[in-house]
Amino acid sequence: MMTDVADKPLDLLIVNGVVLTMDADKSILTPGYVGIRGDEIEALGPYSGEAMPALKTIDAEGGIILPGLINGHTHAAMSLFRGIADDLPLLDWLTKYIFPVEKKIDSEFVRVGSDLACAEMILSGTTTFCDMYLFEDEVAQAAKAAGMRCIVGEVLYDFPSPNYGSIENGLKYTEALIKKWLDDPLISTAVEPHSVFTCSPSLLKCAYEIAERYDVPMILHLAETMDEVSEVRDRYGKGPVEHLLSLGLLGPRLIADHCVQIDDKDIKVLADAGVKVVHNPESNMKLASGIAPVPGMLDAGLTVGLGTDGCASNNNLDLIAEMDTAAKLHKVALMDPTVMKAETVLLMATRLGAKALGMEPITGSLEKGKKADVIVIDINKPHLTPMYNPYSHIVYAAMGSDVVHSVINGRLVMENRVVLTMDVDRVMDAADKKADDVRRWIGYHS
Amino acid sequence: MMTDVADKPLDLLIVNGVVLTMDADKSILTPGYVGIRGDEIEALGPYSGEAMPALKTIDAEGGIILPGLINGHTHAAMSLFRGIADDLPLLDWLTKYIFPVEKKIDSEFVRVGSDLACAEMILSGTTTFCDMYLFEDEVAQAAKAAGMRCIVGEVLYDFPSPNYGSIENGLKYTEALIKKWLDDPLISTAVEPHSVFTCSPSLLKCAYEIAERYDVPMILHLAETMDEVSEVRDRYGKGPVEHLLSLGLLGPRLIADHCVQIDDKDIKVLADAGVKVVHNPESNMKLASGIAPVPGMLDAGLTVGLGTDGCASNNNLDLIAEMDTAAKLHKVALMDPTVMKAETVLLMATRLGAKALGMEPITGSLEKGKKADVIVIDINKPHLTPMYNPYSHIVYAAMGSDVVHSVINGRLVMENRVVLTMDVDRVMDAADKKADDVRRWIGYHS
Repeated sequence: MMTDVADKPLDLLIVNGVVLTMDADKSILTPGYVGIRGDEIEALGPYSGEAMPALKTIDAEGGIILPGLINGHTHAAMSLFRGIADDLPLLDWLTKYIFPVEKKIDSEFVRVGSDLACAEMILSGTTTFCDMYLFEDEVAQAAKAAGMRCIVGEVLYDFPSPNYGSIENGLKYTEALIKKWLDDPLISTAVEPHSVFTCSPSLLKCAYEIAERYDVPMILHLAETMDEVSEVRDRYGKGPVEHLLSLGLLGPRLIADHCVQIDDKDIKVLADAGVKVVHNPESNMKLASGIAPVPGMLDAGLTVGLGTDGCASNNNLDLIAEMDTAAKLHKVALMDPTVMKAETVLLMATRLGAKALGMEPITGSLEKGKKADVIVIDINKPHLTPMYNPYSHIVYAAMGSDVVHSVINGRLVMENRVVLTMDVDRVMDAADKKADDVRRWIGYHS
Repeated sequence: MMTDVADKPLDLLIVNGVVLTMDADKSILTPGYVGIRGDEIEALGPYSGEAMPALKTIDAEGGIILPGLINGHTHAAMSLFRGIADDLPLLDWLTKYIFPVEKKIDSEFVRVGSDLACAEMILSGTTTFCDMYLFEDEVAQAAKAAGMRCIVGEVLYDFPSPNYGSIENGLKYTEALIKKWLDDPLISTAVEPHSVFTCSPSLLKCAYEIAERYDVPMILHLAETMDEVSEVRDRYGKGPVEHLLSLGLLGPRLIADHCVQIDDKDIKVLADAGVKVVHNPESNMKLASGIAPVPGMLDAGLTVGLGTDGCASNNNLDLIAEMDTAAKLHKVALMDPTVMKAETVLLMATRLGAKALGMEPITGSLEKGKKADVIVIDINKPHLTPMYNPYSHIVYAAMGSDVVHSVINGRLVMENRVVLTMDVDRVMDAADKKADDVRRWIGYHS
């Protein structure tokens, strides 16, 4: 069994679980092991119960061993706005709550909110996230300290930012961010103009040029709402996708979040251009933005990942809950119980999600030579007993709190639900203090 | 503070939490206490930190204290079928998996599955459930042993049952069940014909007559799918609601599960008759049955509770997850973020849910003189920090696993997530053994 493992003991060994590799062959090992040396998966295979040499061994106790989940679209620091305003018309929500509080935030606020978000994400199985917000260097530092894999990008738009002021400084901040985190083992960067309705064509082109120069992704919100579509149509005489096409900005470098209000023609345009999409069903439902035509996108060959969006519009960062919603929403939307099968949705949260972010060579599946991003789900609980089908169990029955262990880049970041990379109590105390500021800013009386 | 509490110490006292009473005034105590004597709430009020005399005191540690959740529609024993078949066309799912296995089950199978379901429900905050299945006396015994409040009713239909054989015996079984559990403090009963497409008009009338005679509810699936509507229309020349109306069977005694495929006219008919409805959004989504017009029902004054349905079509019994889905689904369905507010949805899972089952005088809110069905949610976790709005927190951010304590009918059934009324490990072992039978029955190779 251990013939493919070198004589030297492994650094970390996870044994005795159903291994869902999420590789191209959908290989499953029942039971199996995953052996890690340094930051990489060195070996995996069937597990016989035989002792194997390793500096540390984790017993999955019959649970499910799978790749860490990829949260393709977050605004991590908005964890501090969870529940400040719900069930409101979109414009009230934005103009009376979100925009006014965002004008007040500073780098420390973003750091505290990002620390809190990292804790929540690790505790619910996410190992990689892709963030867009203000003061993104703080997000990078929070992710790095938490031991999480992350893509950061400072949000760019035509109006002044509480972080960098004018857009010229925003572009400089973006370049500095890219240079600072070059070659980091966990943090990578992107250029992130907010959307086609908040960014002028010249800003979008400028952003794309920087993304090309540094060979990083460009990420933006696209066709999230009907209002956006109308506004872009009024201004440019075409829809958001056609607008980007006419600007020459559609290509494999582009990651488009949401893509709710798109039609079959848009899907074909996006697919032909090799654009990647991240689907955020819970946020789109809660804000009543609409239902993205994801089964159609997948049929057209588009790469679609899964995201939670920020905590002000979800209100959680739990990808396991998001998978359940994604699987069910499209069934009822198309009145077809066979679309968005559990296996497909789990793929969107793992290997396909990694592919959407340009990270498939590194993460998203358990394969020899990939970075070791691995989680373990405990199934020894009434709601996960008995187990007939591990894919179905994860998507339709598991909760974020069933994730017991998490390894990112070979490092054990959570063991038996204890986060090892941060003092979670301290993080929550700091968040509670920032919440007092938020209450004051919005005149909130609880 | 304790002026309304008698000199004799309380039996159980829960202190130091945000008390969401869910009463008619939507009273909230921040922080508050709930005092219990015997099976009743004897006192509740603001909490000052002052010591209060009680045989046992539970510190909610700043968490949320609220009424136990009401799961208005379950098939508890189907917990043993969770994940045997997903993402299939409805007819394949029913005829190739569910019906064949249900032919093989016996009373012991139902007991094991119901024990397992009770464990899952207690662990996710449910204190009352309303069940429909075979061998329902076993469900009653399981609920009673678990200390849960429950309505049981043997499913009745025109074809032979694995439990009672011919329908004559089914009616006898139903009457015996009603008589056996008369005056039980936890268990009550109902007459439960399966649906208008599996029960002849004479069976439906007969069932209603028994329900009237014993003054218990009649419960059935109604207008769940478009296929049901077509079939009933073909057979009787009218839709399911009109069919029941013409039979004279609509009234306040009737609890109708699902009501997905109904129009505005049906809503008016149901509301005028005082029929109660139980909404099961996740099951309706997963089976692609459709979206029940719940905001319209509530506007029309219908009493609508919330249910999970069985584990084969959800695949969990977690009402906290169900609330999140219910709140979000209707927003996107109506493209209106203001419908199904968090508070409304929590009401559907508590007082309105109790009202739907005819149990509002007993449970569903924290009020002096009501039975003590109380749960506590721990918010000392990253995904529940900070807290601005407890309603929003429960519906949009909490997980079933955040419920830490549960009291039913004055009895502490779960403390610090340990279920005190059953040996959960033994229950899971028994479930795993039954799963081997299921695998054999369906020729399942995992």
